[in-house]
Amino acid sequence: MGRARLRELGISVGLLPTGPLNAITDVAGVRVGHSTIIHDKPSIARTGVTAIWPGGDDTWARAVFAAYHSFNGNGEMTGTIWIDEQGLLASPFCITNTHSVGVVRDALVAYAVKHKVPQDWHLPVTAETYDGWLSDAESFPVTQEHAFAALDNAASGPVSEGNVGGGTGMICHDFKGGIGTASRLVATAGTTFTVGALVQANYGARELLRVDGVPVGREIGLTEVRSARHVPQSEGSIIVVLATDAPLLPIQCKRLARRATSGLAWVGGIGSNGSGDIFLAFATGNRIPRDKPVVDTRMVAPDQMTPLFQGAAEATEEAILNALTAAETMTGFQGRTVHALPLDPLQAAMRKYGRLR
Amino acid sequence: MGRARLRELGISVGLLPTGPLNAITDVAGVRVGHSTIIHDKPSIARTGVTAIWPGGDDTWARAVFAAYHSFNGNGEMTGTIWIDEQGLLASPFCITNTHSVGVVRDALVAYAVKHKVPQDWHLPVTAETYDGWLSDAESFPVTQEHAFAALDNAASGPVSEGNVGGGTGMICHDFKGGIGTASRLVATAGTTFTVGALVQANYGARELLRVDGVPVGREIGLTEVRSARHVPQSEGSIIVVLATDAPLLPIQCKRLARRATSGLAWVGGIGSNGSGDIFLAFATGNRIPRDKPVVDTRMVAPDQMTPLFQGAAEATEEAILNALTAAETMTGFQGRTVHALPLDPLQAAMRKYGRLR
Amino acid sequence: MGRARLRELGISVGLLPTGPLNAITDVAGVRVGHSTIIHDKPSIARTGVTAIWPGGDDTWARAVFAAYHSFNGNGEMTGTIWIDEQGLLASPFCITNTHSVGVVRDALVAYAVKHKVPQDWHLPVTAETYDGWLSDAESFPVTQEHAFAALDNAASGPVSEGNVGGGTGMICHDFKGGIGTASRLVATAGTTFTVGALVQANYGARELLRVDGVPVGREIGLTEVRSARHVPQSEGSIIVVLATDAPLLPIQCKRLARRATSGLAWVGGIGSNGSGDIFLAFATGNRIPRDKPVVDTRMVAPDQMTPLFQGAAEATEEAILNALTAAETMTGFQGRTVHALPLDPLQAAMRKYGRLR
Amino acid sequence: MGRARLRELGISVGLLPTGPLNAITDVAGVRVGHSTIIHDKPSIARTGVTAIWPGGDDTWARAVFAAYHSFNGNGEMTGTIWIDEQGLLASPFCITNTHSVGVVRDALVAYAVKHKVPQDWHLPVTAETYDGWLSDAESFPVTQEHAFAALDNAASGPVSEGNVGGGTGMICHDFKGGIGTASRLVATAGTTFTVGALVQANYGARELLRVDGVPVGREIGLTEVRSARHVPQSEGSIIVVLATDAPLLPIQCKRLARRATSGLAWVGGIGSNGSGDIFLAFATGNRIPRDKPVVDTRMVAPDQMTPLFQGAAEATEEAILNALTAAETMTGFQGRTVHALPLDPLQAAMRKYGRLR
Repeated sequence: MGRARLRELGISVGLLPTGPLNAITDVAGVRVGHSTIIHDKPSIARTGVTAIWPGGDDTWARAVFAAYHSFNGNGEMTGTIWIDEQGLLASPFCITNTHSVGVVRDALVAYAVKHKVPQDWHLPVTAETYDGWLSDAESFPVTQEHAFAALDNAASGPVSEGNVGGGTGMICHDFKGGIGTASRLVATAGTTFTVGALVQANYGARELLRVDGVPVGREIGLTEVRSARHVPQSEGSIIVVLATDAPLLPIQCKRLARRATSGLAWVGGIGSNGSGDIFLAFATGNRIPRDKPVVDTRMVAPDQMTPLFQGAAEATEEAILNALTAAETMTGFQGRTVHALPLDPLQAAMRKYGRLR
Repeated sequence: MGRARLRELGISVGLLPTGPLNAITDVAGVRVGHSTIIHDKPSIARTGVTAIWPGGDDTWARAVFAAYHSFNGNGEMTGTIWIDEQGLLASPFCITNTHSVGVVRDALVAYAVKHKVPQDWHLPVTAETYDGWLSDAESFPVTQEHAFAALDNAASGPVSEGNVGGGTGMICHDFKGGIGTASRLVATAGTTFTVGALVQANYGARELLRVDGVPVGREIGLTEVRSARHVPQSEGSIIVVLATDAPLLPIQCKRLARRATSGLAWVGGIGSNGSGDIFLAFATGNRIPRDKPVVDTRMVAPDQMTPLFQGAAEATEEAILNALTAAETMTGFQGRTVHALPLDPLQAAMRKYGRLR
Repeated sequence: MGRARLRELGISVGLLPTGPLNAITDVAGVRVGHSTIIHDKPSIARTGVTAIWPGGDDTWARAVFAAYHSFNGNGEMTGTIWIDEQGLLASPFCITNTHSVGVVRDALVAYAVKHKVPQDWHLPVTAETYDGWLSDAESFPVTQEHAFAALDNAASGPVSEGNVGGGTGMICHDFKGGIGTASRLVATAGTTFTVGALVQANYGARELLRVDGVPVGREIGLTEVRSARHVPQSEGSIIVVLATDAPLLPIQCKRLARRATSGLAWVGGIGSNGSGDIFLAFATGNRIPRDKPVVDTRMVAPDQMTPLFQGAAEATEEAILNALTAAETMTGFQGRTVHALPLDPLQAAMRKYGRLR
Repeated sequence: MGRARLRELGISVGLLPTGPLNAITDVAGVRVGHSTIIHDKPSIARTGVTAIWPGGDDTWARAVFAAYHSFNGNGEMTGTIWIDEQGLLASPFCITNTHSVGVVRDALVAYAVKHKVPQDWHLPVTAETYDGWLSDAESFPVTQEHAFAALDNAASGPVSEGNVGGGTGMICHDFKGGIGTASRLVATAGTTFTVGALVQANYGARELLRVDGVPVGREIGLTEVRSARHVPQSEGSIIVVLATDAPLLPIQCKRLARRATSGLAWVGGIGSNGSGDIFLAFATGNRIPRDKPVVDTRMVAPDQMTPLFQGAAEATEEAILNALTAAETMTGFQGRTVHALPLDPLQAAMRKYGRLR
């Protein structure tokens, strides 16, 4: 599922080294799972669910700190009001299509009930982007079982990218989009931390697409690859999930989340009106158990934060580009086709502007 | 459904006059509907859905301005990220129990699809409080049909209070809580506006309960009426919906929403840790049609706002008290009983402190 | 300077016990100092500066965590953008009149320079309320030296209240206002913490004034004590400073700050349009040294927070009332007189409503 | 004062056309003035004040809507609490050095008093970046008179850039920074609006500097032009002022302000820890008079906003680059020299990467 990762094409972005997998799963304990839903009957579905466990087996028992930032809030991420209040994330969470946020959100409750999580109520996180161009969104194809499957098959290790999970039917900068991931190793505070990003990329105008500063979107003209859709550039959205093993406080997770904006800008995202550009950052460097009245925590000193910010921006940038290079051309609802970003013209553009030998 | 409204007991709070119905429906165009779910099989359910249409028939076609405030965010209200971004509310919305937020949220999408609302994607608002003390929340008793019914039966006119709709299984200040409503007429800016409140009240410690400043919660001791539950005071939540016909901008709706905090405080709510005290305010004085590139709007001058703030605080206060005086004793899940606020001791306490002749 | 504290009148509010001084200085390390400026030449000045050291001698060397909340932002508090970003407060701070915020803010920079604080730049906190009714604000009577004096004379121990420091010329609920303070002992998380409040109270309509729920403002009619001014109720502001020795994270300081809203509401403040109701909360239970790359911190568990919230609300309420009972009638600019809250009628009103024997 | 504007070097960035002046003053009514302070006695000063009038002569009488966004809040902008509350800006405002925020802020009060603005209290906006590398910041060289001069000499027409006004002593991406400006014409909502930006640029690491995607910072190595300072990259800040004649509501000004993040990212700013990256956006398309109880306003429809967002991002990007190409090498405090961005190597780098013929 996927054609290439950006670096396999000889293209790299950013200044910091990647983690071993160049994936969000380079942050220990993070697991990613996908349910990919592709069928033409009873309705044409090109959709799915992506599940993320922030803290391994004991995600429910030992919360992590988290925060979110909305760069442009034409989208949904449930659970954020509590995250904003106290900065705790104590559950796996999911990304899906816009019209299935509810079923997936309730599925997270049911999944916790099923697994006898000793907690009265649940306020789970589910985010979305809209795939109604390629998928019959009004047929509501996602079920509780799809969410359960994504949660169950979540694993550490390499992460499938492109037309998978919640990203199955997505469009990005007028090419086929979807799920992408990347990571950075960040030397600061006397040690090396990892920052990973996972995106569900479904935003953007073609003319604004840049790769390492090269105006790829304008180079790969509409004559070459037909436009995905004849719609205003303001359609679409991007969900960015940032993970780090650094011991950040909630207020620092918020700072990290905001840096997805920089990485997004480098690829060409400006938060168009119709875009739900919502970023969730969590940090596993503190784990918060239940039932301790006072909890020991740690905090990276503020003046040690900048490299983490850079890591977050770079990982976001590369995760989007990985989504674009991994995603394959797809035909779906009403016979519409969205073309993949063509890799040869991409490399040609990079060469033309002196970025590829 | 309900025993009395506060004023029927000879008790009134606040300085401003009420609207004709003393209900949120005093704001023209606002409709309220309930689906009340009470059954003992296949599971014990004491729950429901309350639906609110902010702008009458053309709620979808002509949005209103809105904003929310979270006083203590241990709760959920979907759709708030877009409301925070642009301040538009263009759909009916619902309040239900915590674990049914998803099904009701998706039902709002399906309802819009069913009614052929010409809009690609929907980010509906659904809020919640937790009724798992009286209702078997883990049996997920709410269905799409319940939401549809609440939406369909929504009407202007008097609003049922107490054990109805989303408020069916709720507990407030250790007495039976639920849905309550009230309104105020506000003379400002050379005219008279209406501010209405509707609450789903499920929060609070008994000892903090006050009625017009009288410490009713301490007066009606636990020996008199058994405690609803033996749980920390931090359980529970309150959703407050504020409506006004004043032409407020989104930033002014936010100001209004924040004043629910004052009304809540007057009754004894301090936003305990486990409480989702989330307030949504909308203003029908501006209607925003689709497809106009520039929209004419109006704004109450800032220095005319204070009376509206007072109206919002007073209506919130009285709506909570109406929920308490309307709600009836209920027995539910695991044989638990939650007692209604006893009206005679309430009046006795008011008399003792010089508020009732 | 001052007539009585509320409890000396036999009146108490709230459920929690006070600290030994019933003052913000019950939080170890907190120091308060005042510069009171009262002169009739060269201009009529009834103003001053109140300085607060959050962390004793090593306030500069070991920061505390802090956060602010604006209930109604018609006011100024400098330094809040950095507090919002990282939650650190590493400097003493001041409260003064509206038009002297700048000189006092720069004085805090100069004071740090003078004391050779090893830090390149400073973003100090200075807040204000407006005293232009009693003081010729446009004569700019506050100088750097006044700020230095308040900083230098700050001390632990009892705190002067009423017409002192930044509170000198203030008006509250149409009576003479000013500085007030109070504290609460809070048993939670297996120990006892202290929460203290200090207010500069300059807000409010007379008819909304309540003492322990008794409508004192309406009981002490305008015939009895002339109105302070013939101005809309929306004039005025209140700055609330909350301190605790609990180990709160910045996000938890924000939660605490928000509870000043409840205490304010109990006295009758609804955040009128012209009011700058801005609350700063800091917690000394974590101290953040310079130059440590990773800092050990602690956090009160979220479910242990509610008693601290109640303490914050109660301390705010009583601090305002202490300002009112301490402040003395004052005549100032243009011969205007603002009357003190008369203590005998206050006690009579409390008696009438069953609160005082 | 200045060497070149970016476009005079044959380099252009962005897709949208510029306004006639390519300056914030392309927005009708906007005036900019500078007080530049350069002296070696009694202290070495390289600082100043930049004043901006958002709405021409009647700035005080007819407010504009405004909002701010803090991308990284290690900085100060006074007056923002009221802007956040109600979205009104009714005064000229200033940008200066960090330690002179207070004197300039109070000067704005005094200036309004001097001009008999009929308003009791003032909450003016003053922002800052830190110039203590080149200027003896602890000598506090800025006076009220400097602020008055900047306010008095503010004018429409071309804007001086580089080492002027508040930007005099600033450093950007390790080269000499300062004031820069740019504008865009934005076709949307059936008309053409102007978006202008003015920056006081004092942030950034050299290695992250990009011009139209070209890694200029790494191309112009440290061997070629000595580093400005041997300090962590996290020093410095940027203030961005965005102006538009579009009729935006306050909530929409906030959306616009946030887009400065994108333009900043394109040049290489990631909001390092020590950076005060604070953005103020105002819109002159609505003017709010005093004393009207209900004010007619207009709003660009949300789905017409995206081109304005792009204009804001592009104008910010180009304003920063104009600051860099205009600013001249400067020697100051303690004999330190900060080099200007060398224009020939800049053009060579652009040529190397195919952006300049």
